[in-house]
Amino acid sequence: MNRKHTIAHSLVALLIGSMVALGLDTARLERQSVDLLIEGGITLTMNAAGQVFSDGLVAIRGDRIVAVGDRRELASRFSAARVIDARGAAVMPGLINGHTHAAMSLFRGIADDLVLQEWLTRYIFPAEAKNVTREFVYWGTLLACWEMIRGGTTTFVDMYYYESSVAKAVAQAGLRAILAETILDLPSPDSRTPQLALQYTERFVAQWRGHPLIIPAIGPHAPYTNSTVTLRRVNRLAERLRIPIVMHVAETETEVRDITRRYGARPIRYLDEIGLLSPRLIAAHVVHVDEREIALLGRHHVGVIHNPQSNMKLASGIAPVPRMIRAGVAVGLGTDGAASNNTLDMFEAMKTTALLHKVATGDPRVLNAHQALALATIGGARALHLEKEIGSLEPGKRADVIVVGLDAPHQIPLYDVESQLVYASRASDVRTVIINGRVVMRDGNLLTLDTAAIRIKANEFRDKVVKSLKAK
Amino acid sequence: MNRKHTIAHSLVALLIGSMVALGLDTARLERQSVDLLIEGGITLTMNAAGQVFSDGLVAIRGDRIVAVGDRRELASRFSAARVIDARGAAVMPGLINGHTHAAMSLFRGIADDLVLQEWLTRYIFPAEAKNVTREFVYWGTLLACWEMIRGGTTTFVDMYYYESSVAKAVAQAGLRAILAETILDLPSPDSRTPQLALQYTERFVAQWRGHPLIIPAIGPHAPYTNSTVTLRRVNRLAERLRIPIVMHVAETETEVRDITRRYGARPIRYLDEIGLLSPRLIAAHVVHVDEREIALLGRHHVGVIHNPQSNMKLASGIAPVPRMIRAGVAVGLGTDGAASNNTLDMFEAMKTTALLHKVATGDPRVLNAHQALALATIGGARALHLEKEIGSLEPGKRADVIVVGLDAPHQIPLYDVESQLVYASRASDVRTVIINGRVVMRDGNLLTLDTAAIRIKANEFRDKVVKSLKAK
Repeated sequence: MNRKHTIAHSLVALLIGSMVALGLDTARLERQSVDLLIEGGITLTMNAAGQVFSDGLVAIRGDRIVAVGDRRELASRFSAARVIDARGAAVMPGLINGHTHAAMSLFRGIADDLVLQEWLTRYIFPAEAKNVTREFVYWGTLLACWEMIRGGTTTFVDMYYYESSVAKAVAQAGLRAILAETILDLPSPDSRTPQLALQYTERFVAQWRGHPLIIPAIGPHAPYTNSTVTLRRVNRLAERLRIPIVMHVAETETEVRDITRRYGARPIRYLDEIGLLSPRLIAAHVVHVDEREIALLGRHHVGVIHNPQSNMKLASGIAPVPRMIRAGVAVGLGTDGAASNNTLDMFEAMKTTALLHKVATGDPRVLNAHQALALATIGGARALHLEKEIGSLEPGKRADVIVVGLDAPHQIPLYDVESQLVYASRASDVRTVIINGRVVMRDGNLLTLDTAAIRIKANEFRDKVVKSLKAK
Repeated sequence: MNRKHTIAHSLVALLIGSMVALGLDTARLERQSVDLLIEGGITLTMNAAGQVFSDGLVAIRGDRIVAVGDRRELASRFSAARVIDARGAAVMPGLINGHTHAAMSLFRGIADDLVLQEWLTRYIFPAEAKNVTREFVYWGTLLACWEMIRGGTTTFVDMYYYESSVAKAVAQAGLRAILAETILDLPSPDSRTPQLALQYTERFVAQWRGHPLIIPAIGPHAPYTNSTVTLRRVNRLAERLRIPIVMHVAETETEVRDITRRYGARPIRYLDEIGLLSPRLIAAHVVHVDEREIALLGRHHVGVIHNPQSNMKLASGIAPVPRMIRAGVAVGLGTDGAASNNTLDMFEAMKTTALLHKVATGDPRVLNAHQALALATIGGARALHLEKEIGSLEPGKRADVIVVGLDAPHQIPLYDVESQLVYASRASDVRTVIINGRVVMRDGNLLTLDTAAIRIKANEFRDKVVKSLKAK
């Protein structure tokens, strides 16, 4: 071996060494800086392939997810200001509560075990007429947001009165929501006539349009509480303002009979005839529908929200959810308001959905754990027509992520994470909640709400409600 | 006024003063000394009158309740070594889980969303054959006891193998239980033949009879898994030993068809014919029964345990619970084992029962909150034929008492405590659990179990189970 060769050899070695060093340095310089990493959890993406990473990583910059995958592959590519250690826990998309009346949490348990008509006319309507004010709605919504965040809900759809006050509370809580101002042919707590409610809606939409978390919407209460004239006006306004329509549809057999008698068609067919079926519509309940109506819902890309516990408690019936899913209808889940359920608990909604449709169809394979999770996440996103933004953990989507503990006695041992989340976990197992990139609950502690103040106000309103119902 | 008079006056005054002082002293001496007072809670007695004390007191001496009532009336009558401040919480009888297979908590989520036959033959039976040992049963039962105490269950009925090991774990946990050794015509994990299982039962009964918390029993698995000969032997042994019989009965339509084909009678009628119906019998499920069979269950004072979530998840059907209650049948609630439900959560069982029968009957007034609470307490006690000892808070009964927090966001505001407990509360809201006068959980902390050790063991068994199912 001559000297020249040796020098050449050394130079090459030096060069390679430098390149390697440079390479490492480059890698370090190119480490993407992100705001938040959620590391080490069993990470359920709920993407189209249903990918689950047993030791996962979710990287978040601003309000978006920038990467999701195996921690061991991805960890070296990111440096983050904050890291959430999710080892031993599940990491998944935030739950989507597709139908509720948030402020009614202040009426939780006011009257149960009653026939719908008695419940409405003897309790709910009088209680609402005497108590529902801007302030009531604001505090009631805060209470609902507290309960929903605590239980892993990151997006909800509301239908109530004074939606500007709802929006104020939701923005403060940091939840994502579609908020629909109720339209009724009867006098409502905030509008004596449907015309005034339509005007309220226009002002409300103008005020909140463009908020990063809030989508203002319009909520015609139901086909049986609004005239055809009102529903057509609602539809024209929604088209002009490009806002969603939230409506109770085909909830009870009484409604189906009533609408059929009045208009000569069952509710979904009637809504089709007057032009209400469209991708703009989010229809809650949809319990009593035949095959033709299911086909109409699919063809018009209507979002359907199933509320199993409310439908059971009010004895409304059992929605044909497996048939709607098979027909390609976009179905999500909801809790309904706390006056009818009586919680805003999406874990209960998932388990009850899976159990109810097994026994209703006689087939235990119907609505398995994965499908129940899908209904509460990506399915709900589709029903809200927000599937490009939320519902799964995928790069480019909004960062709505929850961390769910898996170490409570009712959750051990662990064989299958999807089964454990649907059949064995509770809202109280949720530890950390991130909405739009912001940590709103950390290890069970609410970071956006003054829960002590909410508790005091809730009790004050309760006393007023009790007094108002006693007064004649 | 002369001096004599003054002296006499003073003497009288002195005398009266002494008498008053003596009276006070006597009262103090007569203050009943008790071991434990639970003060200030909204106290639901679940007695025949359904009394609720808004500011209640429960006094406990040894293993018995000595007084229940209004705190302001009773407080001065007792002095206690320990006081539990229950202000702001509910105080009620411990929940009675009338049917489970405790050790199967180690199989929680092993296989879901399957047809019963596939579930049993592909997963449960092989997993049991390969894994169920004395040690497995002992640790699985400890895990179940942890979950049950945490969720407010104070009494349960078990049916499994190696019941001596179950009893060891239950005694350690401090739970009350009826423990039934399984009898099967097939080889079981602890007995190759039903004869051997009967012998095991005799030894088990001899060993545990007279324990303050444990009632040993015999558990013929079902009419379709035991021959008539075996069932008659079981009955004779139960009569001789004076022990309860725990059996799955009329769970599925397949069973009804099978028994009808084999014996020419539906399951309840068949059991009547062979002498199995008696106050000794605790029958789980009882889903598929006609009016005649319901009358038989009532006439023979059979205890029936409704397992709503298991029946829904396995698509077994909906038991005619409201009709059974109307017919005077003693009905209680159960969770079934964690391999089928997948939790041992009596709060879920109460809410699901109330909701399921409303939608099944189309009547929202059916099974109201009070009735659901009754099924889980005094109704369960009747079904277990233990209503003289447990199920309500009444002087002379065993001190099985739970304190349930009412201040979580899903529980405020409070209008009606029964509604809040059934429709809005969770197992995790239970704070303190007293069984047989002993505090076994205080403010969420288990006092009788080494939960860290249980967690480690549960994971070890999980690994073994997974390996055993992979091996051919």
